[in-house]
Parts: sequence; structure tokens; C-alpha cells
Amino acid sequence: MEQKRFFLSENEIPTQWYNIQADMPNKPMPLKNPVTKEDMKPEDLYPIFCEECSRQELNQTDSWIDIPEKVRQMYTYYRSTPLVRAYGLEKALGTPAHIYFKNESVSPVGSHKLNSALAQAYYCKQEGVTNVTTETGAGQWGTALSYAAKVFGLEAAVYQVKISYEQKPYRRNMMQVFGAQVTASPSMSTRAGKDILTKYPNHQGSLGTAISEAVELARMTPNCKYTLGSVLSHVSLHQTIIGLEAEKQMAMAGEYPDEIIACFGGGSNFAGLAFPFMRHAISGEHKGTRFIAVEPASCPKLTKGKFMYDYGDEAGYTPLMPMFSLGHNFAPANIHAGGLRYHGAGVIVSQLLKDGLMEAMDVDQIETFQAGMLFAQSEGIVPAPESCHAIAATIRRALECKESGESKVLLFNLTGHGLMDMAAYNQYLSGNLTNYAMSDEEVEKNLANFSL
Amino acid sequence: MEQKRFFLSENEIPTQWYNIQADMPNKPMPLKNPVTKEDMKPEDLYPIFCEECSRQELNQTDSWIDIPEKVRQMYTYYRSTPLVRAYGLEKALGTPAHIYFKNESVSPVGSHKLNSALAQAYYCKQEGVTNVTTETGAGQWGTALSYAAKVFGLEAAVYQVKISYEQKPYRRNMMQVFGAQVTASPSMSTRAGKDILTKYPNHQGSLGTAISEAVELARMTPNCKYTLGSVLSHVSLHQTIIGLEAEKQMAMAGEYPDEIIACFGGGSNFAGLAFPFMRHAISGEHKGTRFIAVEPASCPKLTKGKFMYDYGDEAGYTPLMPMFSLGHNFAPANIHAGGLRYHGAGVIVSQLLKDGLMEAMDVDQIETFQAGMLFAQSEGIVPAPESCHAIAATIRRALECKESGESKVLLFNLTGHGLMDMAAYNQYLSGNLTNYAMSDEEVEKNLANFSL
Repeated sequence: MEQKRFFLSENEIPTQWYNIQADMPNKPMPLKNPVTKEDMKPEDLYPIFCEECSRQELNQTDSWIDIPEKVRQMYTYYRSTPLVRAYGLEKALGTPAHIYFKNESVSPVGSHKLNSALAQAYYCKQEGVTNVTTETGAGQWGTALSYAAKVFGLEAAVYQVKISYEQKPYRRNMMQVFGAQVTASPSMSTRAGKDILTKYPNHQGSLGTAISEAVELARMTPNCKYTLGSVLSHVSLHQTIIGLEAEKQMAMAGEYPDEIIACFGGGSNFAGLAFPFMRHAISGEHKGTRFIAVEPASCPKLTKGKFMYDYGDEAGYTPLMPMFSLGHNFAPANIHAGGLRYHGAGVIVSQLLKDGLMEAMDVDQIETFQAGMLFAQSEGIVPAPESCHAIAATIRRALECKESGESKVLLFNLTGHGLMDMAAYNQYLSGNLTNYAMSDEEVEKNLANFSL
Repeated sequence: MEQKRFFLSENEIPTQWYNIQADMPNKPMPLKNPVTKEDMKPEDLYPIFCEECSRQELNQTDSWIDIPEKVRQMYTYYRSTPLVRAYGLEKALGTPAHIYFKNESVSPVGSHKLNSALAQAYYCKQEGVTNVTTETGAGQWGTALSYAAKVFGLEAAVYQVKISYEQKPYRRNMMQVFGAQVTASPSMSTRAGKDILTKYPNHQGSLGTAISEAVELARMTPNCKYTLGSVLSHVSLHQTIIGLEAEKQMAMAGEYPDEIIACFGGGSNFAGLAFPFMRHAISGEHKGTRFIAVEPASCPKLTKGKFMYDYGDEAGYTPLMPMFSLGHNFAPANIHAGGLRYHGAGVIVSQLLKDGLMEAMDVDQIETFQAGMLFAQSEGIVPAPESCHAIAATIRRALECKESGESKVLLFNLTGHGLMDMAAYNQYLSGNLTNYAMSDEEVEKNLANFSL
């Protein structure tokens, strides 16, 4: 019997996160103050973020950052997550490829998001913060932050993108079980929300808008900090626990990945899995590894977007970031992969893509659900719509291997399960799912309308 | 840092199930043919069940039954499940007790039910069966059987108790993702269903009725067998993988449980966790271990029911079984723990309870959700309403330890997660949850009305 799942013992769980900024051939360009347009220093971020996260955000010198003992202790509640050889999927595809996935869906909140939520909540608590705010798209980040806040004794207020709030009441309930206050965004509780609702009374919400609302609440509330679930460099840093574990687990399996594949919203799960392996590509120890970010064809910032300075949110409260973007006012189609409905990519990933150290591809919604169905039936796990993007890309690669007869080693990130997304599967099963691919012309048109 | 979770490597996963029937001081009394009232032999069960399960059902001689290699291979998709030290819950309670739980919620389908579904589907396939039928209450068994059928290439038809079909569309969707055909029960597709609907047009369904429908379909369809998710002895047998793993894992933790606690519907998860430990109680190696089955106060078959011969289903298609029962026509209140809404207890457990080798307690619905909330907030996992019964009982014990200052070792079974049950939590959070405890008088009245 061949081994199916690989675990690390608790003392093998990494004690440090990996900060790729220190090792990049070209460092990310600086963040800029949205008002003065000057380069940002950590202290410029303190009004929004906790101080330690602000320092981590701009740290371009230390390759390794210690994981606080209390955070690592909470990691043991669900980590190591298993590295799994997808024998069932391989057999269903008839591919000679060796397919592995890192199963982050076994986290108690159902996704990888907890890896950073615990860190951010911990640092906030250490610094005397009492309240945290955030936004959530698919609901995975909001759930993670709600639980992490409860763990460290903080109050959490979550702005949930309205379409997700309505499509996924269970997600809202789950955040409430963990004690969070949940508001549909856009809401009338912030200026940013009011502005949008005045202009577009039926606005379905977007991550960009929800971020504006959460940032505004954090600014207006004493002892309150904002936390973000992706995009930013310190979030990617915390997520490297995924790849650092996977590296050890791939060694247990006696293999090294030829291709590393992850879905892409703001970039943190991609970064988390890919960066620890990418350090060996940068050092030259493992040349030729391919790093593939997979985005929805309805939100193609990496494959069709423009590298430029842009805001992280709709209202323009965040720093200006050098990134691949579709424009911060871009309103993505209502696809089910809510976690990928974001206009821009994090600064590190954007620089890496620009420098050719990674690549990007886009997939249509229906193909992602076809992939998710095959995965569910062959591996038993119903994947989140976001994760279905990574699965769809992996299946494409595996079928290419079948064509060519190559036994490539493919590793993808199963970011979360889809148990809160069964309505989406139901829509697929009943034949009512739609593709929303954006053409080059549509992207150009949006960027032409776009101004900073 | 103290170890939180204990895993077995794949080669440590047990190779045999434990059959407590062989070691019981008093064996269960025989099943009886519902028509002739004669003692049943395995071949009398073949028209309904696959042959191997029929033999296992009545096997009172072999303590150990080999797990087929293909079943064991599928177990590696999610086993060993972790044994977890509930440090978070202990801290929240301030108890000196050491609380452990076996986390069966990490199974791909979200509960322990897969342990038997894989075995039953495998044996059916081996014997040339092409179609399987079953019933499902909470949806957990139906989901498990749907996936197991897909794994071994069988078609599955599931009768889902109507109230659960309506309250939990996500569960239905999940079964459909795995390719099953799902029908709300009572339905007009069987005589049993038609009879009930004629009498009670608004019948919300019950496990007893859904079983009748599934059994009837199996009888009427060539190459089709019925499968059951609890109650029967072969199901309990397959579930002993839980306790056998837990035994090894408790040894890794350097402890032995003083009390073993599990929720109780038909008895299979209780049996699965308890029986492997109970063999040491029977042999005298570990005297004094307490085995506690926890049932809803709305369905108190163990604490208030009568030991008698009764049918397993509403229509009287199943063999007559010697068991603690509230009467096979008992219609339990619509509590959220759908998996515990069953009128009777399996024959092994019934005999053990009669002989004083185990004990039973009942808990009200609101207390179970209070317990579930505390568990979610302290351990991060939202438990299934069924599992909340075990948690509530464990919390009672742990608080007694706090009172007495004892550091007892408590082990409970976390049978599943509650991610499909968030509507129930929402009802709890909004203060709309009700208790439905049955009084002795009500139970007696029902049993007085009852006739075989």
C-alpha cells in the first residue's frame, strides 16, 4: 500500500516564516502615501495596522521571521495539515503525473486563512488592541479572523461582501458562532459604504468596498486595528507555513515538485505555498520549477491587467501599491469564487510576475466546477470554488502529461473545502452556471476609464 | 509545548475490526423473522443486505474480522483521524480533567459514517451488486454512502428524512455531487411512503419511515441491496476502527480514559469508540472505566424506553430485534440532531445496557447547543448537533471534576462537524431554540399505544 498522506509531528512544524522579500532579485517598489505620494515607512501604516505587521510588511532584509510561540501553539490545533498524494484523481485522469495537494481545508475554519488570522490577532493583542475589523469575500477570511479574535480575546467586526452575505448565510452564522459582529457591505455604517450606495443603490458589494469600510471603522474606533486576509506582504509571510511544511512533506514522499499551482485572489495562498520553494529556484538549487497562479477569467488581473500604482480598496484609503491591477474601481462578475473577486495582486507577486519568476493562467467558471466535481468524486473532498481554479489548472497539466507520457510532479494548494458553497454546486448540477470571461477589449476599456 | 494532536502512521492503522459479540458475557438474543417469528440465520438477511454484512451481523464467535485491503486503502484517505487533547476546552472550563476527543469530523464527508459506508459498498461490489439504497436523517450517512458508492462504482439511491431534506439543502447537494439520487421521505415512490402520506399528508418523515422506503426499494430492484448507517451489529463492527485507533493514540498520550462518552442515535459511533476499550473492562484488565451513551431528552430510548422485541423501521419490514425502544411508530420531535431521532438502540448496546456494562444519560437540546458554542469558541471546530450531546455530557463531567478536584481522563467522540447545520446554530443564537424533553408519562403512553 502506497502512502497517501504525509504529516509532520508537532515539533517538526516550522518555527519561522519565510520572507521572500529579502531574497528577491528585484525588491518590490515602495508603497506610497495615498495623499502625499511619498514612500511609506512602517510607522505610516500604524494608524491602520498593528505595528509588528506594519514592520513585517516593509521588511526587505530578514529572510526568516520567528513565529511567536503562542501562534505556533495555536497552529498545532490543525497543523501540520496533510500533504496528500491524489491517487484517486490520478486514476480518474489516467495520468502518469504524480499529483500532490496540500490540504488546508482541514483547518477548523475550513481554509488556509487561519494561518495569518492567528498571527494578526496575536500581535494586535500584544500591542493592547481591543477591537479588530476586516472584510470578507467568500467568508473564509472573516471566519478565520472571527475565531482568531475569540482565541486572543479581541472583539471582531466583519464587513461581508453583500452578495456573499446573501448567498452564504451559513458563513455569516459561523462568524457569529465565533462571536463576531457581521455587516453586509456596502453598508450605511461608513462614509465609504454610503457613497457607493448613493451612487449604486443595488450594489452587490466587492472586496474593494468592504476593505474601505473596514479600514474606515478601524480609523474611527479607538484601540481598533484593521486586518487583511490577503494581498499584503505580511499576510503572504504568515502563509509561508504552508510551503515550508510542504517542503518537508514532499521530502518524506521522496519527490520535489516540477510545478506548483495555486489559485489567485490577492496572492496569499499562492505565496504561502510557492515562496518557500521559490527560494530554491532563486538560489539556483532547483531551477526549472514552474510556479503557476490561477485566476478566474472574469477577474484577469495577472493575465490581462496592467502593472501600475493603484489602491487596494475602492475608496482609496489604502497606500498606493505597485501591482498588476484591473483598476481599483473594477467590479468583478458575481462568480462563486468570492475570494478571487479582487482587482489587484500583492506587490511581491506582482514584481515576481514582472520578472518572469512565476507565470499566470486564467480559467472559466464552468471548467473550475467540472474540475471540482471530478476532485470530489475521486478524492472525496468537496473543494471550495476558489480551490477549484487550482484543481482545474492541475488537471490541464496532468492531461498534458498523459499526452506526452511525462511523470511530472504537480503540487497544488487545496485552500479550503466547499461545504459552505453547496448552492454553487447545485447551480452547476442544474446547468445554470455561467462563464464571465473578460476580453482584452473589456479590460482595456475599464483601465481607460480608470484614474488615480 | 504539550502535544495537542496524536496521529497514527498509515501502517499503524488497524488491520482488523473488533467484534465485541464474541466476548460479551451475555450474547445478544436472536433477531426474529418478522413474519414467522423464527430466529434469523445469515441467509435470511441476504434478500436485504449483502451476504458478508449478513454474516458479520450474526457472528458471535470471531473477536476479530479482517478489514479488506481495499477498504483499508480508502481509510488512508482520512485515517487515522486525530486524537486531540482539548486544551482549549479544559482552559475555558477551568477543569483539572484531561479531556480528549477523537476527531471523526475530518473525514472527507464530515463524519464517522464513512467508516462503515466504505465497507458496505465494498462488499456489495464484491458480490456483484450494482445498486445500493439507504436512508439518511441528518444527511451524514447518506453523504458517506453516496461517496462510498461512487468509489466502488455503484449507483446509490438515498431516502432523506423530509425535514432534513428541507432544512439542509446543502446536504442534499453534497450527495448529488457524489452522484447519488436523493428523494425526500416519506415519498410516493414506495408503498411504505404512500401509506404514511395517506394517513398523515404533512408527515415530516422519520428514520423509521425512510428505512422502510429504502428496504422496499432494495427488495423490488434486481441487484440492489440495502445499507444501514447505524443500529446493526455489522455497522458497529466497522466503526470499531475509531476506538482501536484511539486506544493506540491514548497510549501515545500516555493515558487511559476513565470515562468514554459518545452521542447515541442507533449506537454505531458509541460502539465504535467504546467497544475496543470495553473489551479490557470485560477481560478485567481495565476495570472501572465508565461508558456513557448520551441521547436527546426528546428521544430517550435508553433512559426511559423498554427492552423488548421491536422492528427497526416504521412499516415492520426489518427483523424483530431485542432492543431498548420507544416503539417503532414513535415520532420524535424535530430536533436538529437528526441523526439521533431514532426509536431504538442496536441489539449489542441494548444487551450491554441491560447487563450494566454501560450507562446512559439524556440531555436537552438547548444545553447541547450551549456546549457546542463553547466547544467551537475554545477548540475552533463547529460540532454537529449530534456531537454536541457528547460534548454537553463531557462538560458536565469535567465540571464535576472541577468541583471534586479530580483529574479524570475523559474521552469523547466528535462524530462530525456542524458546517451543514449552521441554520440550527442561527436558531440558537437568535434565541428560538426549544427543548422537547419527554416525560415518563409520555413515554409510557406511547408504549401503551404500541403493538407489534
